[in-house]
Amino acid sequence: MDENSGYTGESAKFLESIGASVGDIVKSASITGTVMPRYEGGSEKVIVLKLANSYNVSVPLERLDGATSQPAPNKQELEGSPAPKTDESLPKVLLVSTGGTIASKVDYVTGSVTPTLDAAGLAESVPELAQIAQIDAEVVLSEHSENIEPSHWLELAQHIHGAADKYAGIVVAHGTDTMQYTASFLSFALAGFPQPIVLVGSQRSSDRPSSDAAENLCAATMLAASSVCKNGVYVAMHTGVSDGEISYHRGTRVRKCHTSERGAFESINEQPAFTLKDGIIRQNDNRKYYATEKYEPKISVNTNAALLKYYPGMSESVIDSLVGGGCRAIILEGTGLGHVGRSVYGAISRAIERNVIVAMCSQCIAGKTNMNVYESGRKLQAMGVVPLQDMLAETALAKAMWVLSCHDDATKARELLLRSVASEMSQ
Amino acid sequence: MDENSGYTGESAKFLESIGASVGDIVKSASITGTVMPRYEGGSEKVIVLKLANSYNVSVPLERLDGATSQPAPNKQELEGSPAPKTDESLPKVLLVSTGGTIASKVDYVTGSVTPTLDAAGLAESVPELAQIAQIDAEVVLSEHSENIEPSHWLELAQHIHGAADKYAGIVVAHGTDTMQYTASFLSFALAGFPQPIVLVGSQRSSDRPSSDAAENLCAATMLAASSVCKNGVYVAMHTGVSDGEISYHRGTRVRKCHTSERGAFESINEQPAFTLKDGIIRQNDNRKYYATEKYEPKISVNTNAALLKYYPGMSESVIDSLVGGGCRAIILEGTGLGHVGRSVYGAISRAIERNVIVAMCSQCIAGKTNMNVYESGRKLQAMGVVPLQDMLAETALAKAMWVLSCHDDATKARELLLRSVASEMSQ
Repeated sequence: MDENSGYTGESAKFLESIGASVGDIVKSASITGTVMPRYEGGSEKVIVLKLANSYNVSVPLERLDGATSQPAPNKQELEGSPAPKTDESLPKVLLVSTGGTIASKVDYVTGSVTPTLDAAGLAESVPELAQIAQIDAEVVLSEHSENIEPSHWLELAQHIHGAADKYAGIVVAHGTDTMQYTASFLSFALAGFPQPIVLVGSQRSSDRPSSDAAENLCAATMLAASSVCKNGVYVAMHTGVSDGEISYHRGTRVRKCHTSERGAFESINEQPAFTLKDGIIRQNDNRKYYATEKYEPKISVNTNAALLKYYPGMSESVIDSLVGGGCRAIILEGTGLGHVGRSVYGAISRAIERNVIVAMCSQCIAGKTNMNVYESGRKLQAMGVVPLQDMLAETALAKAMWVLSCHDDATKARELLLRSVASEMSQ
Repeated sequence: MDENSGYTGESAKFLESIGASVGDIVKSASITGTVMPRYEGGSEKVIVLKLANSYNVSVPLERLDGATSQPAPNKQELEGSPAPKTDESLPKVLLVSTGGTIASKVDYVTGSVTPTLDAAGLAESVPELAQIAQIDAEVVLSEHSENIEPSHWLELAQHIHGAADKYAGIVVAHGTDTMQYTASFLSFALAGFPQPIVLVGSQRSSDRPSSDAAENLCAATMLAASSVCKNGVYVAMHTGVSDGEISYHRGTRVRKCHTSERGAFESINEQPAFTLKDGIIRQNDNRKYYATEKYEPKISVNTNAALLKYYPGMSESVIDSLVGGGCRAIILEGTGLGHVGRSVYGAISRAIERNVIVAMCSQCIAGKTNMNVYESGRKLQAMGVVPLQDMLAETALAKAMWVLSCHDDATKARELLLRSVASEMSQ
């Protein structure tokens, strides 16, 4: 890559004027840092500097007035090989990019964030990765995760399936918005996959100060490369708002629980499976991820399933029209221990009579459904509604879409929905 | 009330055989406690004892083999007046019962919980209330809260409206499942109500060991009677799993976040407004509850609003059929900062073209929507989707149903939806 690639117009002129290029240290009255590569697009009036605290900061040119440059101590290495050196003794990890903030940068004109880095650019922007694993980087999608659909899940699952046994593990860079849905689908479709699959995202793009992208990506790669983790699908994100600790959540047990904080992801009803602190991966329990030891992928999806959150005043027509439209499984996010009001019993009965699977999770999120305590729960069970224990509603939706693709027969599909496949229910 | 009311068959015979009645202390080899009244229904083979730790326990007769009885120290008082004495120097509080676990008991045959206590029974079963306030008790409903509908909200609001300025405050015993929806509706329909309205529930019925009913009810009554709290709608529940601390959550900012734990309720994006510990109510901030100082109730509801949680693979037909069915406001529970996939943009556009209000909350729950950061958010805003800041989706649904009843005109309704009325958005 061109050493000053990404820098154009005024920023390129500025770097030239002080004789600096990527890898050099630039020092002004107010800031000192190493010049980082700049990806295309965005404002021409900023230089990306890596500060001593390892944050990447986009610095407006006016803050660099009178700055001087000096070669970085490791400049020689960077100049010799802009792509990080490969240590062939390290485990091989496949880095798959799907887009999302982790592969994004801020447009400093509009303030918006768009996915523009490909997997190779992502690996290059975090040179520390080369000390963890030999990275093969591939791009499957370039979408923020709110636009990721079940058809994308299939594409991604097929891609990962093709890499089985070729790597120590797989890292999937993914937007955080629907990461939990994708992690769940991969858990079911690739049940028994023989290596760890680690989804990773970031809440702040990698060119922003306070980005969590580099730390999360390194941590994800460490787990994928590590012998501590045999298999399973995990989400690697900051444990809290501060740097220094990463949680590896089971993919079927995790939710994004905050819109913006770096520690937005939480394991529900359990501890994260692993934690990374001070460079050490700690295993928090020794439960197996998959019910099966055998890898027999079933990569298919049927979108005739719906997730419906109950609320007072819900109209029965919502359920009736889903069923009329061909819906074959409805995941209800009921209240409390797993209830809905009797005002929608009629529609639920009609759905079940038409062989639609109606299954119950709780909008409380934490805790377990128990449809034996109250009259409502018992009546709903008598009608044929099945409680999903402590399965998360998002996980249940992804599972329902997978289950329907596995079995045309509703009884078999229901049986599979209720059987634990990939840690989705605590036993 | 008959002193041994509620005890029939074998349990009545047992009490007679040892010469015990309600208020006496019964002591067997394994347990000692004060005989409490027993409400109708349920097993005949148990005696309800209040233990020294103030828990009420239903004790099977076989555990009371060889028990003896002695009059309780306060037996004289109980015998003289089974209804607690009224201290006319205490503030007056109206206790309204709607049903729910707090007004329920376990059926020891089926293990189920049904609402059978009326408000007076509730007040009687917690004699400590008489030391906090002069209680007037009324029953408005007898429903577990999963069956509470917007029409019940109206009934309850009308009832409370009729009690304005007649009491120091109002306590509403309510099931926990949909308490947050009811608390939100009351906040809007009765905005400016001149006294505190405190909803209270329990996660364990009052005749069970570990019931949180008595402590929650006393705490709710304390806030209603207290001069610390000027006005507003609150939910009074255990702060955590242990006794000893109660949180008073703002009614528009609270959710039930666990299916079964006693500390299931959490204020989202803020501290509870008040906390009770060691008998002292502490105010955690001094924000006003209502935007208005004036009490001008608008007790009406329009159920042509829906709450829709987005998920990958959601069909556009869900939105189209809501709109076709006359829905005039859709609260979307989007992903992350307030997004939905572009696959449903078409249906959202069609809804907005037909003057349907489409408003955005986040399924992350904590944090704030921000539809300016990502392309998806900006596009959705350009289409006319309005972000609801950090309003909870359940609160937004109740508000939408109220707003639609206030204004036929969509522009005016939308404006009211976005304007803070009762602390539903942090500013």
